[in-house]
Amino acid sequence: MDIYETMINRRSIRNFSDTKISDDIIERLLEAANNAPSGGNIQPLSIILVEDKNKRNKLAEIVGHQPWVANAPLSMIFCIDFNRVKQWAKIHNTEFKGEQSFSHFLIAYADIICAAQNIVILAESYGLGSVYIGSIIESINEARGIFSLPRYVLPLMILSLGYPKSKPEKMPKLKRNVIVHSNEYHEMTDEEVKKAFDDKYGDFGGDPKEYFKKAYIEVLEAEKQGNDAIVALASEKMKKLDIANNAQFLFKLRYPADVMVKLNERVFEAFSSAGYDFS
Amino acid sequence: MDIYETMINRRSIRNFSDTKISDDIIERLLEAANNAPSGGNIQPLSIILVEDKNKRNKLAEIVGHQPWVANAPLSMIFCIDFNRVKQWAKIHNTEFKGEQSFSHFLIAYADIICAAQNIVILAESYGLGSVYIGSIIESINEARGIFSLPRYVLPLMILSLGYPKSKPEKMPKLKRNVIVHSNEYHEMTDEEVKKAFDDKYGDFGGDPKEYFKKAYIEVLEAEKQGNDAIVALASEKMKKLDIANNAQFLFKLRYPADVMVKLNERVFEAFSSAGYDFS
Repeated sequence: MDIYETMINRRSIRNFSDTKISDDIIERLLEAANNAPSGGNIQPLSIILVEDKNKRNKLAEIVGHQPWVANAPLSMIFCIDFNRVKQWAKIHNTEFKGEQSFSHFLIAYADIICAAQNIVILAESYGLGSVYIGSIIESINEARGIFSLPRYVLPLMILSLGYPKSKPEKMPKLKRNVIVHSNEYHEMTDEEVKKAFDDKYGDFGGDPKEYFKKAYIEVLEAEKQGNDAIVALASEKMKKLDIANNAQFLFKLRYPADVMVKLNERVFEAFSSAGYDFS
Repeated sequence: MDIYETMINRRSIRNFSDTKISDDIIERLLEAANNAPSGGNIQPLSIILVEDKNKRNKLAEIVGHQPWVANAPLSMIFCIDFNRVKQWAKIHNTEFKGEQSFSHFLIAYADIICAAQNIVILAESYGLGSVYIGSIIESINEARGIFSLPRYVLPLMILSLGYPKSKPEKMPKLKRNVIVHSNEYHEMTDEEVKKAFDDKYGDFGGDPKEYFKKAYIEVLEAEKQGNDAIVALASEKMKKLDIANNAQFLFKLRYPADVMVKLNERVFEAFSSAGYDFS
């Protein structure tokens, strides 16, 4: 399959077989990550490989009991690592203050995601599947403890990898012209926005299981992995919150707006514990 | 060339020929971006295509007169677009508050970089070259004006694309084992850190031109594009600041530590103008 097809057909995989990934393949994935673009070529990236079964379990737990993180033979934690950069600067009688610079932080975050996305695409081409887990943002302190991350090392993204046991359907996407603008931004009318998302999600329908199949695939995947109660729980919650459309599903149940805002406190506290402060 | 080789050999290109990129290729690049992973599949991404010569010039100017941004036949501005998501939520009687949630912001930023990196790799496989320009972070307000970006749309990364007129040498990289940790973080001694970066950069040497060739390639590339004074200026500045090693070059001249911290004010003000506030 060529690169284009690989990118278009790529799906997040959460159901992994036990087959281990060979050292040779892991090395190639990491080499591709290490050669990803880096702002100013500073390379403020550390990748923690998590293969140890006990640590995989702990990691799965702190990101909200996501069974695929425990079941994947390999997870990688992508960290912004200003510890190494600061140490290097100090050795050479200068100072790096990335932990106080929001610009350095943003560029470093772009760096680690470029590296991760190289791995996603290369892994896909080797027949591997992968899934990003962003919710580690809410458990930075816990992750720092488990993986002995020193000050100035921020774990911000997990990529879990393995050979797929099953492949869910392709997720629906907005049409390309919705996200693309030519030389200036084109505002959309309410009607156009409604249509864009209706085209993407299709009918909301009344059957939660059918709905989860395209909008909240994690629920069905968790069910396959010994988390039997979760479909019933999620369906019940949908009923209780009186969820009548896709937007409400996302912002009332999955990412409740006020909860997401309240999380800031937790995130900034963890940043501060790790020595980061942009104020 | 296979995907692995494409990733390993990829270099930022800043010297572009005038050859236009065909519509067919641009469509494939954008389709690959649109199918990149997205947290919760929310797709809070807008891409502004900049092909208009006048807008290319303006864009080059606001990111600090980078001639390659003007000379590339196509630049793409990657924006976090919570405007569309908020509009959609409102239509359906719910609310999305991503502009107040640092978690939503971080996941959205990962989304736009995954999309951009898909384009980088696919473009490379088509014989195109590309360069990321992160310094748009410091000119968000200006970019919002030029490209008519509404509230809640944050331009955070530029990717300039075109067919390479020349290819600089491959940038040196840290050894893979410096960035990779197995099951827990391994701290390095000062000696190890020093060696890791010495291995990467080699001797600092005394000849600025030789140094720019691997560490500050932009300077020589700018010289090729009608910015003749810049090598002399940069060399002079190195002498004046008494720069004696690679770390000092990076954090005294290229990204002066205190200047980078002071930029926060400007960045947060621009975030605030665009309606973003995480406090």
